[in-house]
Amino acid sequence: MELIYVLDILGTFAFATSGALVASDKKFDLFGVLIIAFVTAVGGGMLRDVLINAHPINWIGDLNYLYTIFAAVFFTFLFKSKIAYLSKTMFLFDTIGISVFTLLGLEKGLAFNLHPIVALIMGMISAVFGGVLRDVLTNKIPLIFEKEIYASACLAGGITYLVLNEFSAPQAVLFVVSTIVIVVIRVVSVRFELELPKIKDDLFTKK
Amino acid sequence: MELIYVLDILGTFAFATSGALVASDKKFDLFGVLIIAFVTAVGGGMLRDVLINAHPINWIGDLNYLYTIFAAVFFTFLFKSKIAYLSKTMFLFDTIGISVFTLLGLEKGLAFNLHPIVALIMGMISAVFGGVLRDVLTNKIPLIFEKEIYASACLAGGITYLVLNEFSAPQAVLFVVSTIVIVVIRVVSVRFELELPKIKDDLFTKK
Amino acid sequence: MELIYVLDILGTFAFATSGALVASDKKFDLFGVLIIAFVTAVGGGMLRDVLINAHPINWIGDLNYLYTIFAAVFFTFLFKSKIAYLSKTMFLFDTIGISVFTLLGLEKGLAFNLHPIVALIMGMISAVFGGVLRDVLTNKIPLIFEKEIYASACLAGGITYLVLNEFSAPQAVLFVVSTIVIVVIRVVSVRFELELPKIKDDLFTKK
Repeated sequence: MELIYVLDILGTFAFATSGALVASDKKFDLFGVLIIAFVTAVGGGMLRDVLINAHPINWIGDLNYLYTIFAAVFFTFLFKSKIAYLSKTMFLFDTIGISVFTLLGLEKGLAFNLHPIVALIMGMISAVFGGVLRDVLTNKIPLIFEKEIYASACLAGGITYLVLNEFSAPQAVLFVVSTIVIVVIRVVSVRFELELPKIKDDLFTKK
Repeated sequence: MELIYVLDILGTFAFATSGALVASDKKFDLFGVLIIAFVTAVGGGMLRDVLINAHPINWIGDLNYLYTIFAAVFFTFLFKSKIAYLSKTMFLFDTIGISVFTLLGLEKGLAFNLHPIVALIMGMISAVFGGVLRDVLTNKIPLIFEKEIYASACLAGGITYLVLNEFSAPQAVLFVVSTIVIVVIRVVSVRFELELPKIKDDLFTKK
Repeated sequence: MELIYVLDILGTFAFATSGALVASDKKFDLFGVLIIAFVTAVGGGMLRDVLINAHPINWIGDLNYLYTIFAAVFFTFLFKSKIAYLSKTMFLFDTIGISVFTLLGLEKGLAFNLHPIVALIMGMISAVFGGVLRDVLTNKIPLIFEKEIYASACLAGGITYLVLNEFSAPQAVLFVVSTIVIVVIRVVSVRFELELPKIKDDLFTKK
């Protein structure tokens, strides 16, 4: 599907830009910015492909990912102070990114005959691990562990995909419905600042 | 050997619980807790399998690891405030975990025709790397680099295994004797707070 | 080429020593020092080989890397307080290390029929990632993201190699010229404290 490939590239652009912004806030030099943009954008798919032994891995098999990352860093370098005004656009691209990464990762897992649970995890790794790597390399506790129902949105979308797939829905329907699930959960959770429960107390703790 | 598989699962449970406890102390949400429990429990075996090209890797090839991790997180979620009372049991499980992980990792390395030194390192990676990943992802200096004769216990047990293996001891003997070595060193070192020497001074430093 | 192998081992020794020094400054025990020396020295080549599916990976296929790392840690353990006097020698070895690692990594990438850009990235990963791992495991922001034209030197040397290769220069010439490029850039940039530009301001920021 041509459209999905375009969305994949848009998502890669958004992820690379988010990495470049974090790295430049940390006063990394141009090279450090490139590396952080790179791992943020393709780190998830790279880990997935190494774990399921899918060679050549994502960015080695298709150079468009690299070119997109170079473009995103160039874009950040030129327009950094303007990107704040684009935050809604970037949020949109980013949300597109996690949707597409989740679903393409899941699909690849199924194509490799993995158990659906494992394929689901591969989808989530694809969407989430780039951001984790970005945070580890910039010496922060990964954002995803603390805030936002980011990963939960991917999880819900992935499960939607698997359920519809059981009922042999056509691929276009699978993608559209699952993407809507991810986007809606993400937007709603960010808008209303929802959070997952934490293991602070347990059933037996007195309030 | 059936028993070893049961011990492997017990060890996985202990490692996952230790990861879940660290993550919930850091106020991670449920999803973050799951990820940390996951990498703590299967991170070592996962790295080993990627390095020696053993596909499908551990948790992809056997779903029982995933189910055990889910159970451990559920258990931590319910009983967190009670686990303090179980610290001796958890320490026992954890010690079982490092023993079994070390010896199974080493055995897998030998089965892949690796040099004994490399197989030994694979055993240690299996036992130790999950905890390292847990600490890196929660932004701490890995505990293992600073305290406890944790890794040394694995090393001594692994060497015992290799030496007995040279003399063609039966597998049951290999496992039992090597496990005893690991457990005894671990328990003794924790009880007496032993530490490895550090490179603070050298031969020529005047005291 | 025999000479290149000798330089590869010298570079491994220098990288392992640099790792051992950082780890002992952090008061790691002997085991922690060994691990940090290990990842610093072979981490880059290990990641490269995993990404391009080159098994057995570097230190598994050739035990001399391990022996060199053991020797470097032993050397650091004995002579730590003296190494300060050897800083110029160590800087030389280290610079040899990044040159040889870059060029051998690039060459391996080409031998695996990778696109030249990807092969270039493989060369840089070989040279740079060990130090990144060292810094992540000791909970520091990777040095390379903030200072020194370290990676840029590798990049320039790698590009030199690729350009000369296009003109079918003999391997000895390729290596010598590219190495000179890397060494000169590194030495000059350290001496004059050059830095890459940062993304602080953009084209539209008023000064």
